[in-house]
Amino acid sequence: MNNMNLKILARELNLAISTVSRALRDSHDIGQETKDRVRALAEKLGYQPNPYASSLRQNKSNTIAIIIPEIENNFFSQILNGIELVAQSKGYHVLIYLTHEDFQKEKSILQLLRNGRVDGLMISLSNSTKTYEHLQAWKDAEIPMVFFDRVCEGIDAPTITTNDTEVSYKGTEHLFASGCKRIAFLSLSGDLSITNRRKAGYLQALKKNGKENEQVVIECGEDNEENNTIIRKLLRKKNRPDGVFTAIEKLAINVYEVSKELKIEIPDQLKVVSFSNSPAAPLFCPPLTSIIQPAYEIGKEAVTTLFKLIDKKPLLKYEKKVILPSHLCERKSSSGKPKSKS
Amino acid sequence: MNNMNLKILARELNLAISTVSRALRDSHDIGQETKDRVRALAEKLGYQPNPYASSLRQNKSNTIAIIIPEIENNFFSQILNGIELVAQSKGYHVLIYLTHEDFQKEKSILQLLRNGRVDGLMISLSNSTKTYEHLQAWKDAEIPMVFFDRVCEGIDAPTITTNDTEVSYKGTEHLFASGCKRIAFLSLSGDLSITNRRKAGYLQALKKNGKENEQVVIECGEDNEENNTIIRKLLRKKNRPDGVFTAIEKLAINVYEVSKELKIEIPDQLKVVSFSNSPAAPLFCPPLTSIIQPAYEIGKEAVTTLFKLIDKKPLLKYEKKVILPSHLCERKSSSGKPKSKS
Repeated sequence: MNNMNLKILARELNLAISTVSRALRDSHDIGQETKDRVRALAEKLGYQPNPYASSLRQNKSNTIAIIIPEIENNFFSQILNGIELVAQSKGYHVLIYLTHEDFQKEKSILQLLRNGRVDGLMISLSNSTKTYEHLQAWKDAEIPMVFFDRVCEGIDAPTITTNDTEVSYKGTEHLFASGCKRIAFLSLSGDLSITNRRKAGYLQALKKNGKENEQVVIECGEDNEENNTIIRKLLRKKNRPDGVFTAIEKLAINVYEVSKELKIEIPDQLKVVSFSNSPAAPLFCPPLTSIIQPAYEIGKEAVTTLFKLIDKKPLLKYEKKVILPSHLCERKSSSGKPKSKS
Repeated sequence: MNNMNLKILARELNLAISTVSRALRDSHDIGQETKDRVRALAEKLGYQPNPYASSLRQNKSNTIAIIIPEIENNFFSQILNGIELVAQSKGYHVLIYLTHEDFQKEKSILQLLRNGRVDGLMISLSNSTKTYEHLQAWKDAEIPMVFFDRVCEGIDAPTITTNDTEVSYKGTEHLFASGCKRIAFLSLSGDLSITNRRKAGYLQALKKNGKENEQVVIECGEDNEENNTIIRKLLRKKNRPDGVFTAIEKLAINVYEVSKELKIEIPDQLKVVSFSNSPAAPLFCPPLTSIIQPAYEIGKEAVTTLFKLIDKKPLLKYEKKVILPSHLCERKSSSGKPKSKS
């Protein structure tokens, strides 16, 4: 941080720094001629007041934070894109923090931010988050907060999600319709409400097809090697599934990798449906049937809601719990006519 | 921003806010017993001083900024990952700004940040940046700055890049070795030094193969539809290329899309090599021969260098111009034996 601009102004004008500072604040004890000279040069040099001094005076940081589990995922990067665009247009600055699915990290980031560094927070929880005191403490500090994607239902704050249960039901139902008899559900481990909602949709479809006693629920983690081991074990079983529904994109990549390795043909021997926002999903071998989330819109909605809270505008009832629709895009990976060309 | 914590402390202790504040600063006019009571509760409640007041006192913001053209790209998100990890471990906050390849946006972000909001800046230029006054003004303000990926060679600041020319030569040479006779180079438009370096590698390979008069250099942009139109025109030509080298990943996706549409078989009728950091590239149809950049390491190196500048540590000569090696990963899309299975 530097005060270069104020110093340069004073030096160039041959004035005291305090005089320049008062002239810029339109102080009554500075003559009009001096004010005009100072302002003219300030404009020319692009002078701006120190933002932190302004923050303290106005009790406002013009900064918001986004906390997400990871960024190497098209879903979160599209969300960030939506957030940054709206924030920039409002003259706000965006701090970004990654938890890497680590609850302790999430906790310490929140504690660090609670002291007034930001005017508001948008957060998608880590999958290892099981207690919510850190979120309650934030809430108690009365700083605006919006949950998106992986939300915390026990804390009273606006949430932006998608129709997880409905679209997961639809995806699983589509696998049944394509001829699958035994469908596995792959998700991140942990107790995330989003995972539970997606699983609920899967279970509903199982029930509808009279398969409620044949659930195959597999919990994976962050590490690709470990995930591949888990999936290898699943696909080597005698009664291996003929359909897989993965709750996150990276698990679909793991399924494709292991299938290739074990020479299991997708979709002939294994059909795959996954949540995915990858622009390359149509180019996969075979093209991946995807549940596409409105990620950019989720980001825009989250930050717009946050600004309403910051500006102390009242939220309408539906704005407190926004659910944006995802849609199923059928491609070759779940095709019921395996011999046909896509 | 709020002063909630200080207020809560004062209320809980039944003391004036100013007393609490002075006790925390170990002021000599507050008794030891009061100081102990205040500190004990402060610790219990996780009180932290206002960061902006601290910033002003210490003339340090503990905040750095990263400016990138886009984030929906595995390369930039891996870089951000590397940066955020090191910054978090140093107790620094990371502001993120996206230019969306817009020079005016880049300029105004830099101007906005020059007033002391950040202790340092890492930037990868937009492809529409043609003049460098905004970067020179930053340099003149003596705030630490590091360029990565798309650097500005006219400004004296450390740069972190990869061996673009060498690896582009290698990629193009590989296409010739696989049997290509006519190779096109696809890149973003604009005057970026990185594009010029990659093009130089392509041209060197052409020259080595006696094809210096057969260069096919195609400039694309941000818009996927427009890019597909440009590529469609290229691939419908009578003397269409039998090899394509794309300088960025998204253009490879465009080439795959158009080839599929025009029923041009990759690699039989068209071989493709691209810069790409997508973990899904091996799953493409066919798997994409990729030049993989050490993105995570570029991020880590950029932020480590920035911290050295912030801490006023001297840089060794090689630290001022770091070049990290990329590598070519050959896959089916450029295979010289088109009939064989991958």
